[in-house]
This record gives sequence, structure tokens and C-alpha cells, in this order.
Amino acid sequence: MKPGKFITLEGIDGAGKSTQLAWIVELLQRGGMQPVVTREPGGTPLGERVRALLLDKSMTMHAETEALLMFAARREHLDKVILPALQQGQWVISDRFTDASFAYQGGGRGLDQAKLGILEHWVQGGLQPDLTLYFDVPVEIGQQRVRQVKDADRFEQEQAGFFQRVRNAYLDRARQFPNRIQIIDSSQPLTEVKAAVEQTVQRLLHDA
Amino acid sequence: MKPGKFITLEGIDGAGKSTQLAWIVELLQRGGMQPVVTREPGGTPLGERVRALLLDKSMTMHAETEALLMFAARREHLDKVILPALQQGQWVISDRFTDASFAYQGGGRGLDQAKLGILEHWVQGGLQPDLTLYFDVPVEIGQQRVRQVKDADRFEQEQAGFFQRVRNAYLDRARQFPNRIQIIDSSQPLTEVKAAVEQTVQRLLHDA
Repeated sequence: MKPGKFITLEGIDGAGKSTQLAWIVELLQRGGMQPVVTREPGGTPLGERVRALLLDKSMTMHAETEALLMFAARREHLDKVILPALQQGQWVISDRFTDASFAYQGGGRGLDQAKLGILEHWVQGGLQPDLTLYFDVPVEIGQQRVRQVKDADRFEQEQAGFFQRVRNAYLDRARQFPNRIQIIDSSQPLTEVKAAVEQTVQRLLHDA
Repeated sequence: MKPGKFITLEGIDGAGKSTQLAWIVELLQRGGMQPVVTREPGGTPLGERVRALLLDKSMTMHAETEALLMFAARREHLDKVILPALQQGQWVISDRFTDASFAYQGGGRGLDQAKLGILEHWVQGGLQPDLTLYFDVPVEIGQQRVRQVKDADRFEQEQAGFFQRVRNAYLDRARQFPNRIQIIDSSQPLTEVKAAVEQTVQRLLHDA
């Protein structure tokens, strides 16, 4: 059986990932697929317990602890959800994956990218998503959108400078892996964002 | 200020670590010290939450997830407890440390020792305990002692073969680091175990 494709969505909160995730599901369903939708940190019972720990505002932790917990949840996510689904030919869409570790723990918290690369290789070997959509939005716009809908978690309560570093790290990563990571300008009107997403996803469907 | 010394205790459950930990505290107090006593996994608020996850019998997890969680808790433990205390000249005694990862996740679960070595270096750099006491006891004796006092956690419910592999890995590790790791024959009568511990601890106190 042909293995499924692995699509990841990246971006700061308020970049419109949730809306576009629903749109990608719709596009794949029109193509006759039943995609597996998952998220990080989380995606497994253990991963969701680790997620609760990571988002808990009452917790303080070293940036390297945070990175190790993210990759622990990711190891489980790969083993229990992502790899089995891909092997069965299912397509998997994950709301965030390893690029987020490079953006948040690397850019945001200042962890060395090479040190993160060691964990990436430890956990994934050579596995990478087939397509990553990075939804790029100026930090002020993202933060405005988030504040309208919910209370801030341990990451969201960070200051604008933190998210600026996260955004810069995402853009660096996109420049480093231009074939895998598509930058979508998420400050455009919704119809144009959807059109850009559709074009990219159709190309992957066409290649599959 | 002269940094403190870092002592770790290792062994399977039922090897008598708790009794000997109290004895080492007593010996150090006689030497005029106020040692910091801690444990792994755990030792910090975050570490204790991770410990609960690791010991929870209802959780299933990949051996590599388990290793990453152990090292995440350890990173925090070093940052919040062990390193600050040592820097302030305090002696630290930890009930288990990294040798336990080589024994349980390496020996017990079959994880590659070299792969564990990558995490060890990622988290600790060159830091190693000044002294490790490994309390060696035949698996049957350890298990008999444990069953008398409490219900089994996720590790303790493993079969005898698992603990045999853990014990072998501990012994391998002791042979690999003969200067740091002292093997204490914990199947001896209590007075003899205490005498062996006293001799080793006195030597460290004398060198300090």
C-alpha cells in the first residue's frame, strides 16, 4: 500500500491555523480522503498530559526541560498516531510539529538550533513532513486575534518580543527548507489565504 | 566557596536504598553537614508531575518516550535543585540518577546505550556524580522485599526478566565506571551493608 502524506501546519497563535485546518480537511475530503487530524503538543493520552504540563501557567521550567518534554510527547505521537496512519495509507494533518520546537524553544527561548537538531534526529531519524504550511502574520495581528477569544496559556502570556523571535525563527526555517515549507501570507483577506492553501494542497494531491 | 559533593544511590527496588540513604544522611550530619536529599524521577514540582506520569500503570508509552521524560525531569532537577545546592557548597544525595536510565530504559526496555549516551550528554554535559553507591541484590530478594510493603507501580509490575536485565545493566555500568560507582553487596546482613557504606562515605568526606 502507498503510504499517506504528512502535512503540518505552523504559525504563531492567531495566524489562522484552525480555520485553514478545517479548509484542508474539506479539500482532502473532496479528494475522497479521510484525513487523520492531530496536534502537538498532544495527540495521545500521554501527550495530552504533557501538553497540560507545558501550558500550565503555574509551572516554571528550564527551556531545555520544555524542549525535552515537547520531544517526549512527539516520540509518542509518532509511535501511536502518525506512523501507523501513514503506513496504512492515511493522510495525517498535524497542527504544529518539530518546526514549532525550532520556533518556540529555539527562537522564542533562545535554545541552540544545533542542540534542537540533535533531539530532532534522536526522535525522528530522517522523517520529515511531506508538506508544511507556515501561516505568517505580523505579531500584533496574531495577538489581537488571540486576545478576542481566550485566556492566555503559559506560551501565550509571553511578551511581543518573544513572538517576534518565534516568527523570525519560523521564517529562517522556511528559508532553510524551501521545498518542504510553504509560506502563506496570513494577513491577506481570508479568501486569498484559502486560495493559496488550496493551490498548495492540490499540488500535493496531484503528486500523490 | 568549595562546591559540594554529589552522591547518587542506585539499585532495583528492594535493594535497601531507603535505609542506606537515612544512614548516609546520619553519617554526613555527624560530619557537620546538612545534606540536600532528593530523588529521581522527581525532585521538583515539574519532576514530580512527570514522575506521576511515569509510574502510572494506566499509561502506555514507547521506551524512547519514557527515556525523554526521565531526562526532561532530570534537566529540571539539575537546574532547580542539584546545581544550585552544589554551587552553594551543599552536599546532595539523590535516590537514583542517570545510571538508572541506563539500567531501566537501557537494560530493562532494551534501548540502545549509545542513544541514551546522547541524551546524557545533552542534559548533563560533563557533569557526573562524585560517588555512586550501587546496592546490588539478587532480583528474587529485591522483589520479595518490595511485595511486603506496597502495591506495584508501572515499573514494579514488570516481570523478573526485566529486573534481571536492569541488574545486569547496573553491573555493566559499574564495571565501566569503577572509580565513580561502588558496588555494595546488599544481600549481606544490614550491619555489614552499613559498614561498607560508612567506609565509602568516610573516604569521600576525607577527600573533601
